[in-house]
Amino acid sequence: MANVAKKVSWSGRDRDDDEDGRAGETTPLLNGSGPGAAGSGRQETEVPRQRPNEIPHNEKLLSLKYESLDYDNSENQLFLEEERRINHAAFRTVEIKRWVICAMIGILTGLVACFIDIVVENLAGLKYRVVKDNIDKFTTKGGLSFSLLLWATLNASVVMVGSLIVAFIEPVAAGSGIPQIKCYLNGVKIPHVVRLKTLVIKVCGVILSVVGGLAVGKEGPMIHSGSVIAAGISQGRSTSLKRDFKVGVELPGVQVPLCAVPTGDLASSLSSPGSCLSSSLCPTLKVPSLLFQIFEYFRRDTEKRDFVSAGAAAGVSAAFGAPVGGVLFSLEEGASFWNQFLTWRIFFASMISTFTLNSVLSVYHGNAWDLSSPGLINFGRFDNEKMGYTIQEIPIFIFMGVVGGILGALFNALNYWLTMFRIRYIHRPCLQVVEAMLVAAVTATVGFVMIYCSRDCQPIQGSSVAYPLQLFCADGEYNSMATAFFNTPEKSVVNLFHDPPGSYNPMTLGMFTLMYFFLACWTYGLTVSAGVFIPSLLIGAAWGRLFGISLSYLTKGSIWADPGKYALMGAAAQLGGIVRMTLSLTVIMMEATGNVTYGFPIMLVLMTAKIVGDYFVEGLYDMHIQLQSVPFLHWEAPVTSHSLTAREVMSTPVTCLRRIERVGTVVDILSDTSSNHNGFPVVESNPDTTQVAGLRGLILRSQLIVLLKHKVFVERANLSLVQRRLKLKDFRDAYPRFPPIQSIHVSQDERECMIDLSEFMNPSPYTVPQEASLPRVFKLFRALGLRHLVVVDNRNEVVGMVTRKDLARYRLGKEGLEELSLAQT
Amino acid sequence: MANVAKKVSWSGRDRDDDEDGRAGETTPLLNGSGPGAAGSGRQETEVPRQRPNEIPHNEKLLSLKYESLDYDNSENQLFLEEERRINHAAFRTVEIKRWVICAMIGILTGLVACFIDIVVENLAGLKYRVVKDNIDKFTTKGGLSFSLLLWATLNASVVMVGSLIVAFIEPVAAGSGIPQIKCYLNGVKIPHVVRLKTLVIKVCGVILSVVGGLAVGKEGPMIHSGSVIAAGISQGRSTSLKRDFKVGVELPGVQVPLCAVPTGDLASSLSSPGSCLSSSLCPTLKVPSLLFQIFEYFRRDTEKRDFVSAGAAAGVSAAFGAPVGGVLFSLEEGASFWNQFLTWRIFFASMISTFTLNSVLSVYHGNAWDLSSPGLINFGRFDNEKMGYTIQEIPIFIFMGVVGGILGALFNALNYWLTMFRIRYIHRPCLQVVEAMLVAAVTATVGFVMIYCSRDCQPIQGSSVAYPLQLFCADGEYNSMATAFFNTPEKSVVNLFHDPPGSYNPMTLGMFTLMYFFLACWTYGLTVSAGVFIPSLLIGAAWGRLFGISLSYLTKGSIWADPGKYALMGAAAQLGGIVRMTLSLTVIMMEATGNVTYGFPIMLVLMTAKIVGDYFVEGLYDMHIQLQSVPFLHWEAPVTSHSLTAREVMSTPVTCLRRIERVGTVVDILSDTSSNHNGFPVVESNPDTTQVAGLRGLILRSQLIVLLKHKVFVERANLSLVQRRLKLKDFRDAYPRFPPIQSIHVSQDERECMIDLSEFMNPSPYTVPQEASLPRVFKLFRALGLRHLVVVDNRNEVVGMVTRKDLARYRLGKEGLEELSLAQT
Repeated sequence: MANVAKKVSWSGRDRDDDEDGRAGETTPLLNGSGPGAAGSGRQETEVPRQRPNEIPHNEKLLSLKYESLDYDNSENQLFLEEERRINHAAFRTVEIKRWVICAMIGILTGLVACFIDIVVENLAGLKYRVVKDNIDKFTTKGGLSFSLLLWATLNASVVMVGSLIVAFIEPVAAGSGIPQIKCYLNGVKIPHVVRLKTLVIKVCGVILSVVGGLAVGKEGPMIHSGSVIAAGISQGRSTSLKRDFKVGVELPGVQVPLCAVPTGDLASSLSSPGSCLSSSLCPTLKVPSLLFQIFEYFRRDTEKRDFVSAGAAAGVSAAFGAPVGGVLFSLEEGASFWNQFLTWRIFFASMISTFTLNSVLSVYHGNAWDLSSPGLINFGRFDNEKMGYTIQEIPIFIFMGVVGGILGALFNALNYWLTMFRIRYIHRPCLQVVEAMLVAAVTATVGFVMIYCSRDCQPIQGSSVAYPLQLFCADGEYNSMATAFFNTPEKSVVNLFHDPPGSYNPMTLGMFTLMYFFLACWTYGLTVSAGVFIPSLLIGAAWGRLFGISLSYLTKGSIWADPGKYALMGAAAQLGGIVRMTLSLTVIMMEATGNVTYGFPIMLVLMTAKIVGDYFVEGLYDMHIQLQSVPFLHWEAPVTSHSLTAREVMSTPVTCLRRIERVGTVVDILSDTSSNHNGFPVVESNPDTTQVAGLRGLILRSQLIVLLKHKVFVERANLSLVQRRLKLKDFRDAYPRFPPIQSIHVSQDERECMIDLSEFMNPSPYTVPQEASLPRVFKLFRALGLRHLVVVDNRNEVVGMVTRKDLARYRLGKEGLEELSLAQT
Repeated sequence: MANVAKKVSWSGRDRDDDEDGRAGETTPLLNGSGPGAAGSGRQETEVPRQRPNEIPHNEKLLSLKYESLDYDNSENQLFLEEERRINHAAFRTVEIKRWVICAMIGILTGLVACFIDIVVENLAGLKYRVVKDNIDKFTTKGGLSFSLLLWATLNASVVMVGSLIVAFIEPVAAGSGIPQIKCYLNGVKIPHVVRLKTLVIKVCGVILSVVGGLAVGKEGPMIHSGSVIAAGISQGRSTSLKRDFKVGVELPGVQVPLCAVPTGDLASSLSSPGSCLSSSLCPTLKVPSLLFQIFEYFRRDTEKRDFVSAGAAAGVSAAFGAPVGGVLFSLEEGASFWNQFLTWRIFFASMISTFTLNSVLSVYHGNAWDLSSPGLINFGRFDNEKMGYTIQEIPIFIFMGVVGGILGALFNALNYWLTMFRIRYIHRPCLQVVEAMLVAAVTATVGFVMIYCSRDCQPIQGSSVAYPLQLFCADGEYNSMATAFFNTPEKSVVNLFHDPPGSYNPMTLGMFTLMYFFLACWTYGLTVSAGVFIPSLLIGAAWGRLFGISLSYLTKGSIWADPGKYALMGAAAQLGGIVRMTLSLTVIMMEATGNVTYGFPIMLVLMTAKIVGDYFVEGLYDMHIQLQSVPFLHWEAPVTSHSLTAREVMSTPVTCLRRIERVGTVVDILSDTSSNHNGFPVVESNPDTTQVAGLRGLILRSQLIVLLKHKVFVERANLSLVQRRLKLKDFRDAYPRFPPIQSIHVSQDERECMIDLSEFMNPSPYTVPQEASLPRVFKLFRALGLRHLVVVDNRNEVVGMVTRKDLARYRLGKEGLEELSLAQT
């Protein structure tokens, strides 16, 4: 029972379609839940569970287009044999390889960050010089509108290129990539997210958006870049480049007594590639010295995800010079099962990454060995002695946290409506490019108008402004508003933190905050690669400094001397209010300031901002994840979900396979496009016994496809013969892009062959009884990173299947537990 | 099968006993594994699995005396009903309570740390003054042996008191407590470890050992203290004080439709306390407005352990002023399932703890609001500009890591032999006290002799020595060796880090390192409360500084200017070589120095020290855990254990109970002292059907005891009647010290009653099939923090039980996988 689901497009035009198609992993189709009916391969229609009143782009919807990653190793016989063959020394080799890969991830991430930094610095410098010279020229001559035109055109054309490559080549490279990496670490497979092509587009896109003068940062995308690098290196090949960088390690040959292996009904041995028939000799077999590829062992979701965690941490570390913050980010956003060794490796990658960046940038900046640039952004040194805080200031910090929470919630709410608008009306790539260009031009115009209107002149002497624009100021002075726009946002943040009191006019700051707030909000979600960290920090630093100045003014300058401290707290509050991270963000801020003393107030500010912000609306990343209807699993099941049991949550009935199954049935089940299941419980194969047929194992679609591709089956008449034996390598070589079933030709004769799944299935899948409560199922699922969880009855018969989507459907809404609808968006 | 185990004492005198008794959780006795035999209550003997050739105090032994904690909620009907009754708002209240408790943990831990610090400072100051005055007197008069006598006697008598209270009142308060807390967080219940009495003894003991001049620190014990505080506060009562600090919160009354609850064969309702018989009316029942106690909800292992994590983190935070390091310590040593909310709470407690300490100590030291003392030990400020490092120094740091690893391994190896000696010969409390006094006297003597022999005089002007001892130095000079002994070790560490070059004579440093190394090694493991962090740092700082001086000398003082930097690296290397922490220790060192720049070299040093040290011998804490034969579960199963399956690992046969069981049978099973199981699978109760009887649930000893105590059963003849209904509160009130079965009187008539377990058992225990490999079982067990894991066959029949000891038995030794023996030590 499961209707053939109508394809519902992303664009919102199919709103008349009021039936939800339940398919994918979520609705294992009926194919007979008992052993007798298992071979039928029929399809029936299912009564839709619930009819959503509004179809796409509704946040109460869960998309079925996302697959899950599988953090649980399929412990089939092949796997166990390999593991048993590897001795202690070989395991040590694997461990060393992991460390080497982590070091490489760190080095490459650091180098990519350096590349971005250096290119951006040079290109942006070039642009500022051109514009400044032009403005200088026209200030005296009159006709500044030409300058505006030049500036806007320059920005728009640079951003156009950046937007074009993203929109037309790799849309997943848009934005900061943090929501995507969060999803990946959570166990959701976002298509293309860790491909080399994505990395190239991301890096170019970030450079172009920053150079194009958008209100964006280059830090967030580093996290995505690090993750792609990690995925690429750990797999040792790039499918984008169609290359497998084979690096081999010799393992000694071993004697494998094949007959001792329990193989179920069919004896099995290594046989020559062919069709069904093969010989059945099985004495001890000498496996010839094994070419154990350096990367092959890591070709599975478990290992890949571990490395991606390391890559994300390395990215944070390179971006902010915060190795510990990077580790905590990875753990806070990703890992569920905390493993000490994994954490050390992640930490190692982070350290290497910031060290590489530091070395290279130090050399580039000419002060070779002093290691003074640990990250893409350094907040500069906050000196303890001058800038401590006192207990009386703590209520003020908390108040700033409240402000940050409210402003952050406002930012997110505005961005939410904007995103809804974009999903509905700006979904064509060319429109997206036009919007990006428009934003670039408007950003330039706003900047120009503000500079033009500003009468805030500061003496040029003693200041460290890179491109001082005189405009209408007296000689020897410069326009201080211009510095805010003639600077990468990173530098503006640092200036706000460290410029001596009196550098900024309160009015300038106020105007700047206001305009930048709306610009940044408009910019986030454009089809360009760009991050929201730096704009948030900049907004916060601006109003924080304004706050500090006001405080100093109100109290007649008694103890509130340094506005830089308040700029820092404001930056923390604003960023916290928008992204709602606490522990990792505290540590990142601590490391970026190089100051441990501020840890306590920063923590207070971030927590307050989070609590206040959460009262109104979700964090920006979570909001975008939800708008994409991703089946994201939070840390715990919704608190009031104890009333639900596995029975109510599971998808049922389930397509089961028999242990020895007809090839035709397998092909039919896999070809069923309306269901597209990925995991199939394997049940006892003897249909003529009255004995209870319990669950025997679980086999994945990808495994079945590899089996069919290699024609691993025997003729029905010759069941006693031995089917071809595969190696784990055959499965790993196909990872992660398994061919579709349509590409595999199975002849009519072959359809009548039988396939023995015993040695390929996972004989010990995790199960839960029907009575288990949702939180219990959730905990098991989340703690072990499962993809399929079989629900069994008292006699171990399969009654249902729980997948990620079944759990992600239940959410805590404003009025208690709510159930999301599923759609084929 | 299971022999009546001979009690093997701790002292090693029963070495002729060559049979190991397998009991406790590990060997659920045969009591019929099928449903038919379930009620028999017989005991049979078991063939011992393996005969150990040496019985106690062999590290290849696993003790059966340690129980497990249960991180898995027993989701029985009572629990689910409570959870369902609590609405979203009430959950929010619970969450707020958790935060409040964490804040209280932080505050109290900070205050305890302040108390220790202030008392130690005053008492130690008093002692140094007395001894200094005495030495000054006798230096001129002659007869310095009187001074020695005074000093040694003073030390020995102070230490005697400290040792007496530990040895006779609470032996678990000995040492730093870190191994014990590691075990607790790992899930092993160490008796008395989180009791109030332990805290009091710990605090007094630490003060007395530090004042007594032993080579110990007061930092490690803070971790234990914080944990005890956390356990005490979260439970809202102290069994030591026999007080329940009842704080109530009113919840509105609700209507509970009792008949809708599926109760199995027996209908159930709330009935008056009495014996078997009661009425069977069950319309909707109005639960009167519930007095929901603030702490009652947290009375279970899961919640308590979460709070203890927070307490441990708060302890680290107070000790080193390292809140992030505290969080990482807790996670590195304890938590397996990383939960974001829990981590935030832990972080919050840590921050509050260091903030409290900082405020109070700042006020105490007179500089009220400047918050300059974040921890018990502050390494002082390492200034970036003066003390950066260059890339060329990195190989040198790595070399220091190697040295630290070797010295650490030597320390651990010596301490291992010493501990073996102590276990064999110094097991009587009075002997332990004598040993502690001896060490105290020897420490004083060594100090005295070294001061006496030293001719290292430094000018008194410009130095910040608290108790300058002139001895044989010229006027205006002081004996620099004396400062090392006339100081708490914390101050000596800071002096080694920050004293200007030339403050120390290389010979003095060398002698000091050597003597202190052996003294610290002898001291660790004494029956006094004391930590090993500071002595390790001190040894390392001494040889590190020596190394720096030598380097400066060898290279004719070119770039190796500051020995303080090398002292820091040496301290890190030595501590890392002894305790083998990496991530958390790096962060602790970073936070304690207030310097992020040194992160990278410290990480390198710690990793090198760990790798080198691990090559020789385990870390100190792990070594002591192993010497106590604690069933400690590491992060992963041994790498070569894929060849083992659940079938081989599990204990079998298992004592099963029927769903409706005879009271006499239950009492007999519980009274069986030779087995002493804690979890019993519940199977289908109908013995006369031929139908397969699968697993239905799991019930704990503690639950059965509460049921028997409240006489929850009905007469056999009146099975249709309703048994008394208990509330979850009845179980929680008994937590954690459930009465022994012997204290519950069950009359002969009552023995014939029947008890229905359906609503008390956990109906969905986690299970694994027999074919699951050991790593798979291990992962499930560890990730979910289980205590019992039922092994079932294809038809869901119980075939075995896996407990912590079954998994902890397998260990990776030098020659591959080894199996530990079990003993009743």
